[in-house]
Amino acid sequence: MLESLRTIDDNVKKWMKEVRVKVIASFNDDLDVKTKSGPNDLVTNIDREVEEFYKDKIKKYYPGSEIIGEESAHEVREPKNEGLLWVIDPIDGTMNFVKQKNHFASMIAIYRKGTAMRGYIYDVMQDKLYWGGPEIGVYCNQDKIEPPSDKKLNKGLFGVGAPLLIDNYHNLQKAALESCGTRIYGCSGIQFIHVLNGQCVAYISYLRPWDYAAGKVLAETLDLVVKTIDGRPIDMLSSSDVLVATKNAQKDITRIVQSTY
Amino acid sequence: MLESLRTIDDNVKKWMKEVRVKVIASFNDDLDVKTKSGPNDLVTNIDREVEEFYKDKIKKYYPGSEIIGEESAHEVREPKNEGLLWVIDPIDGTMNFVKQKNHFASMIAIYRKGTAMRGYIYDVMQDKLYWGGPEIGVYCNQDKIEPPSDKKLNKGLFGVGAPLLIDNYHNLQKAALESCGTRIYGCSGIQFIHVLNGQCVAYISYLRPWDYAAGKVLAETLDLVVKTIDGRPIDMLSSSDVLVATKNAQKDITRIVQSTY
Repeated sequence: MLESLRTIDDNVKKWMKEVRVKVIASFNDDLDVKTKSGPNDLVTNIDREVEEFYKDKIKKYYPGSEIIGEESAHEVREPKNEGLLWVIDPIDGTMNFVKQKNHFASMIAIYRKGTAMRGYIYDVMQDKLYWGGPEIGVYCNQDKIEPPSDKKLNKGLFGVGAPLLIDNYHNLQKAALESCGTRIYGCSGIQFIHVLNGQCVAYISYLRPWDYAAGKVLAETLDLVVKTIDGRPIDMLSSSDVLVATKNAQKDITRIVQSTY
Repeated sequence: MLESLRTIDDNVKKWMKEVRVKVIASFNDDLDVKTKSGPNDLVTNIDREVEEFYKDKIKKYYPGSEIIGEESAHEVREPKNEGLLWVIDPIDGTMNFVKQKNHFASMIAIYRKGTAMRGYIYDVMQDKLYWGGPEIGVYCNQDKIEPPSDKKLNKGLFGVGAPLLIDNYHNLQKAALESCGTRIYGCSGIQFIHVLNGQCVAYISYLRPWDYAAGKVLAETLDLVVKTIDGRPIDMLSSSDVLVATKNAQKDITRIVQSTY
């Protein structure tokens, strides 16, 4: 299995590089932008094309796989056989992709029999791929990254989803003010990266499975905590608030959240 | 004067490139970090060294100048003679510099007899210098950038300073929710850049003169509006809330703000 995972790594990296070329080429064309659940929930032809591209590759190279893609299959289910489960977010941060042509990610997570095998988060415009899994650790491109130091909330920056901050969800504003500063990038992949590499001590947002699947694999590989805001395990089959944090920052945030009850 | 401004451009660009080398080299050394007005208002030895570097260069090449630097001269005054007034922010976004080693800027603005001549905002880690002035337009490195299209608030992203958003200063949360999304980067230079290049339609934060001097020169050169949140002109001698926006987004934000009175 280790050998075949190495081949998977090589393949996924190759596919993601191809996606980068497609995406950058698309900047010269008119985008076809449609709304989904509301005016700020967008999908473009590029989201759909990239998802189809990944799905075609997976079906060709790993025919026993089950695939969950943001733009096509919203019902999450386990593969019936011994195959792999792939969770795909073709373009994470579509609003940034449309408005900024920057600050978006392409993400893939791989599970086998319910066990996390791999996560890949690709910061497309910076050409930085964060990838890895439990038995090999986490890499940024070729370089292995060490688990970030276990800082408390008041020693680091705190990434937050804008709606949760504005609504003061579970007293989050107090937690934000206890941190060194609040950061909102509008892309969960990019904000997971900031926690993986120690640029932030925590990130919380309301996320769907494809928004956090890859990030959860990588974060837990680096001994970071990935839980709901009140400390419960994440149910990989549903949308939820998702907090990724150092162990100490997670304790601080849970304390502040619970102080409101 | 045009000829001498060209020489100034060449000099400032050279200095800023030297600053980039110094800053990146400093990542290998221990930083000396001190707090100023509060725990999240930092100054490092690098802020001070970079400011001294700029001041030494300015005094040597432009001896008649008055210099206002974030870390040294907090009293703003006009030059007594015909010389230039330089406003320097050596490292804008010091918290990001300390915690992220990324997402900070180095900024210089130049005035003569109260008239804006030049602004320079250098995204150090991306190696992108936004620079220019009224008679030459605005450039990103070598490339001239066009004024961004005059989008309404609900057609673009809105950069906000975290404290103003959390406090719902002047009803800002409603304006944030009317936009396509809120972005907080923790560096006014970087957030000014996003409005200059059209990645955001507006940015508002409580800023000191050296935080916005360069951005104001560049934004006004690109026909963007730079005012207080309630539409008053910016007093260059004091700290204030500062809104930079497209004309249409500024109208939208002012309408929302005034609807609370």
